[in-house]
Amino acid sequence: MSAERATAILNAAPRPSIGPHLLSVDDLGPDGIAEVLRVAEAFAEVERRAIPKVPTLRGRVVATLFFEESTRTRLSFETAAKRLSSDVLSFSVSNSSVKKGESLRDTVETIEAMGIDGLIVRHPSSGAPHQVARWADRAHVINAGDGWHEHPTQALLDCFTVRQVLAERAGTEPEGTACFEGLRILILGDVRHSRVARSEILAYSALGARVTLAAPGSLLPPSLEGWPVTVAADLDTALAEADVVSLLRLQAERGSGAFVPSLREYTANWGLTRRRVDLLAERAIVTHPGPMVRGVEISGDVADLPITVATRQVTNGVAIRMAVLFLLLGTDGSIGAGVPESETGGAGTTIGALRG
Amino acid sequence: MSAERATAILNAAPRPSIGPHLLSVDDLGPDGIAEVLRVAEAFAEVERRAIPKVPTLRGRVVATLFFEESTRTRLSFETAAKRLSSDVLSFSVSNSSVKKGESLRDTVETIEAMGIDGLIVRHPSSGAPHQVARWADRAHVINAGDGWHEHPTQALLDCFTVRQVLAERAGTEPEGTACFEGLRILILGDVRHSRVARSEILAYSALGARVTLAAPGSLLPPSLEGWPVTVAADLDTALAEADVVSLLRLQAERGSGAFVPSLREYTANWGLTRRRVDLLAERAIVTHPGPMVRGVEISGDVADLPITVATRQVTNGVAIRMAVLFLLLGTDGSIGAGVPESETGGAGTTIGALRG
Amino acid sequence: MSAERATAILNAAPRPSIGPHLLSVDDLGPDGIAEVLRVAEAFAEVERRAIPKVPTLRGRVVATLFFEESTRTRLSFETAAKRLSSDVLSFSVSNSSVKKGESLRDTVETIEAMGIDGLIVRHPSSGAPHQVARWADRAHVINAGDGWHEHPTQALLDCFTVRQVLAERAGTEPEGTACFEGLRILILGDVRHSRVARSEILAYSALGARVTLAAPGSLLPPSLEGWPVTVAADLDTALAEADVVSLLRLQAERGSGAFVPSLREYTANWGLTRRRVDLLAERAIVTHPGPMVRGVEISGDVADLPITVATRQVTNGVAIRMAVLFLLLGTDGSIGAGVPESETGGAGTTIGALRG
Repeated sequence: MSAERATAILNAAPRPSIGPHLLSVDDLGPDGIAEVLRVAEAFAEVERRAIPKVPTLRGRVVATLFFEESTRTRLSFETAAKRLSSDVLSFSVSNSSVKKGESLRDTVETIEAMGIDGLIVRHPSSGAPHQVARWADRAHVINAGDGWHEHPTQALLDCFTVRQVLAERAGTEPEGTACFEGLRILILGDVRHSRVARSEILAYSALGARVTLAAPGSLLPPSLEGWPVTVAADLDTALAEADVVSLLRLQAERGSGAFVPSLREYTANWGLTRRRVDLLAERAIVTHPGPMVRGVEISGDVADLPITVATRQVTNGVAIRMAVLFLLLGTDGSIGAGVPESETGGAGTTIGALRG
Repeated sequence: MSAERATAILNAAPRPSIGPHLLSVDDLGPDGIAEVLRVAEAFAEVERRAIPKVPTLRGRVVATLFFEESTRTRLSFETAAKRLSSDVLSFSVSNSSVKKGESLRDTVETIEAMGIDGLIVRHPSSGAPHQVARWADRAHVINAGDGWHEHPTQALLDCFTVRQVLAERAGTEPEGTACFEGLRILILGDVRHSRVARSEILAYSALGARVTLAAPGSLLPPSLEGWPVTVAADLDTALAEADVVSLLRLQAERGSGAFVPSLREYTANWGLTRRRVDLLAERAIVTHPGPMVRGVEISGDVADLPITVATRQVTNGVAIRMAVLFLLLGTDGSIGAGVPESETGGAGTTIGALRG
Repeated sequence: MSAERATAILNAAPRPSIGPHLLSVDDLGPDGIAEVLRVAEAFAEVERRAIPKVPTLRGRVVATLFFEESTRTRLSFETAAKRLSSDVLSFSVSNSSVKKGESLRDTVETIEAMGIDGLIVRHPSSGAPHQVARWADRAHVINAGDGWHEHPTQALLDCFTVRQVLAERAGTEPEGTACFEGLRILILGDVRHSRVARSEILAYSALGARVTLAAPGSLLPPSLEGWPVTVAADLDTALAEADVVSLLRLQAERGSGAFVPSLREYTANWGLTRRRVDLLAERAIVTHPGPMVRGVEISGDVADLPITVATRQVTNGVAIRMAVLFLLLGTDGSIGAGVPESETGGAGTTIGALRG
C-alpha cells in the first residue's frame, strides 16, 4: 500500500463504529473484521516508514492487565500502543495473587478511575474480560486471551496474514474479504483447550471460509453442537484438501494421561511431519500462534519451511493490534494518524496542521 | 475550572516554592497544602481535555522505587508522570531483597548518578524516604508510603476530594481552604498501623479541621501525646457529629490475636455497617484509601452508597500527584504546562512559543 | 564541551560505521572505541541541558532482554534509550525459565518479528548475545553482560571516565585516546569470574595501555595465554606503579571453599584497605563497576575517598549507552540528535527543520 493511500484510510472520517470493546470475534461481524483488516493494512504501511510512529493516541493511556504471563502478546500490544504514541502502563500479576472476583473488580475499578483509556486483559478464566468490560465505564477493553475461550486479535492477525499471502501470490494488493469465500481451513491439534481455535472458527466462518477440525477425540470439545465446523474423517485427506492449516500448540503437560497417551504418539498420529507436508497442496499455508514446540505438533524441518508463516504472523500482529486500538480508542480526540511524521515536522506540527 | 484559568495557574511565575522533597505533610504547611490543591485543580481540568497531557516535564526522568508492592499507588504516580510527559522508570523489589541500609544507599546513589530527577519511594520501614532524601543530591524524593509513618499524597488527595464535594454541594468552585475550618473529621479503624491516618491528621489539622479518632484500644497508637486529636468516647456519638469519616483498612492478618479478637467482632464493634451509616449526618462524606475489604471495615452495601467517595479519590489521586511532581520538579526547565496541546500544535510548538 | 560542538558532532554525516552489533569490545577496535568516546562526550553535554533529551531515535523500539537481573545496567540502558526518544520495552526473565537454546531462539525471533530495532541482552551464559545476533535479521544487538565473558559498555564507560578525569587534571577537554598510551592499569580482584575484567583488558590494551592483573591464584583464569596482560608479582609494588586501579567485585558466595578461604582473609590480602591506598601514587584513579561490597574488596572509608570514581562511572554510563545506541541504531532514519530541544521548538520542528 502506498503512503498516500494509508494516510487516506487513517484520516478518513467518519469511520465505521466498532466497539466499545473487543471481547470476542463475534463483536465484530464480517464488516467489522473487514474494517480491522483494512485499517491494519494502512498501519502495516506505517510500520515500513523510516519513523514508524503516528501521533494518533497521544495523551491516551493504555494498560496491559495480564493475570497470566505471555511475553509475546504483551510486547506486541505494548509495541502497537507505543507506535500510536499512547502511554503504556504494565500490570502483571501471577496467578497466585488472583484470589477472587471481588479483587479483580477492585483492581479494574481502581485502574478505570485513574483515567485509563484502554485495558488489554489476559486472564486464565474464560469470560474474565467480559466481566472487566461490565465494570468499566470509560475504558475500552480488549480480550488478549481468556482461558480456553477466545483470543480475538490472534484470529484477526491470522486472517490478515492469510489474505496477505494470497494477494502476494495473485500479484494484487490485499483488499476485501472475497478471498476467504469457500477457503478451506483445517484447524489441527488441541482444539479443546485452544482459545485461538475458538476465535479462528468464528472469524474464518464469518468471512465465508469452511472450517474443518482434526484432533484426537480427547482434544476435541465435548460438544460441537452449533459450531460452524466439520470434523475431519481422515487427517491425510483433510490435509490434501486444505488451503490453510492452522496448527495449534500442544502443551507438554497434556502429553500423558487423560488427553494424549504420549507426546511421541501424538506426533506420529497428529503432528505436522515431513510426510504430511508432502500431502499438502502446493498453495497451502501453515499458520501457528507460537511458540512452536518443534518435535511435538510440528517437526523441526517443517517449522522452517516457507509454507510456515509464523514469523510473518508475529509481524502482522503489531499492525492488527494498532488497528484495534485505533478503531476502539481513536475517536473524537484522535489525531493525525496517517500523516508520516518524517514529512510533516513531527507530531506537534501534524496535529496543528490537521486541526488548524 | 475553565481551561483558561487552568492555563493561567500552570503558567504563572514565580510559583511558591515547595520542596525539594515531599516526605511528610509537615514539609508543606497550610500554605503548601493549599498550593498543591490549587495546582491539582488545574490539572484536573487538564485531565478532562481531549488530549490530557502537557509537556511540562519533558526530558525529566522519574523513577518509581517500590520496596513494597502497591499497584494502585505506583500506577497512579506513573500515570501522573506520563501525563506530564516525563519519562518513567520502574524499579520494584520484593521485601526479601532488601537486606540492609547500605544496600538501599547504594541503590539510591546509583539511580541518582544516572541523572534521575524524581524518586518516588515506597518502603516498609518508616523513615526510609527521609534516608533516601539525605543521600540524594539532585533528585526530588516523594514519599509514597513508608511503614506506619506517612503517605502524604494520600492525605492530600483526601483533602482535595473533600473540598471538591463540599464545593459541588455549595454550587461553587473549589477554592482556598476555608472550608476546612472547624470541619469535624472522624478517623475510624486501625490508626495504629496506618500511615494514611498519620498524614491525614497532619493535613486536616493544619487546615483547621478538628480530628477525632475511633478505634479499639489495641489499634490506637501507644501514645497520642502531642497529637492534635481527641479520641472518641463513644462511636455512635462521634459518627453523628462527623462531617467526614475517614475509614481505614483493617489488614486481615490483624484479624486475630494481639490486636483484634476476630474479624467478625471487629466488624460488629467498629465496622461501618448500615446501622452506623444511619447515624451519620446527611452531609457526611466517607473516604477510604482503598482497597476496601467489604464485610470487614465496611459492609458491602455501604461501600456502594454515594456517600462513599473512594472511586473519586482514585481519580483525584492522579491530579494531586501531577501537582506534586510539577511543584517539585517543574522549575527552571519546565515548559508550557498549561497550554492545551490540541490548540497549539502540540508539545513542540508550544515550547517554541513559550520560549521564543 | 560546548552545545555547538556537541550539536556538530551529533549531526555530522557520514559517521564512521560501527556495528551492526556490539557484542565484544573487539567489535570496535581502537577507532571504534575512540568514536564511541567522542560521541559520548557530546551526549554528556546533552545531559547537562535543561531538557536533556534529543529526538534521534524517535519511532525506534528498543527492548531490554535480561535473563539475569541487573537493575543498575537495565535502568542505565533504559534511561539512555528514553533520552534518545526511543520507545522502550522491558523483558525480564528469571534464570529458572531459561531452559534451552531453542526457547531463547524462539523468544528472539518473535521479538525481532515485531519490528524491534535494538535488543539489549544480558544472559548468564557466555556467548548468548552472539547467538541472539546470529538469529537477528533486523535488530541491533548489544551485549549487556554475558556470563564471565564480556560487558563492553562497562569497559567503555570506564575508559570514558578515566579520560575525563585525566583531562580535568590537565585542564583540557577530553579528546582522542593518546592519554591511554602507556597508562598503567591494575585490575585487582576476582578476574576469573569477571566479564568486566575481560572487556577492560581488551579496551585498555587496544588503546595502548599496559594492563596488570592482581588476584589470588584461584581467582585468575586457568590460562592467560594470548592475553595482553602481565600478572603482578607483588601487590604493593603494582599498586605503587598504577595510574588506574580497576577494582572488581568479590561475590560473597566465593568467600569460602574453592576460591577464597574466607572473606576476612581476602580483604587482608587483596582488599583495597587504607594502608594500600597510601601506597598509591597521588595521580591514581580507582574505578569500580558497582555495587561495591564495603568491607570486602574495599574498606568503607576508602570507598568514599575522592580517588574512587564509582558514582561518576554510573553517570557516564548513560552517555556511553546513548552513544552506543546512537551509533548502532541512528543511521538512515535518525533525526536531529544534536539540536537542543529547548532552542528549536521541540522534537517536531527540529525534524522538520533538519529535513525540510
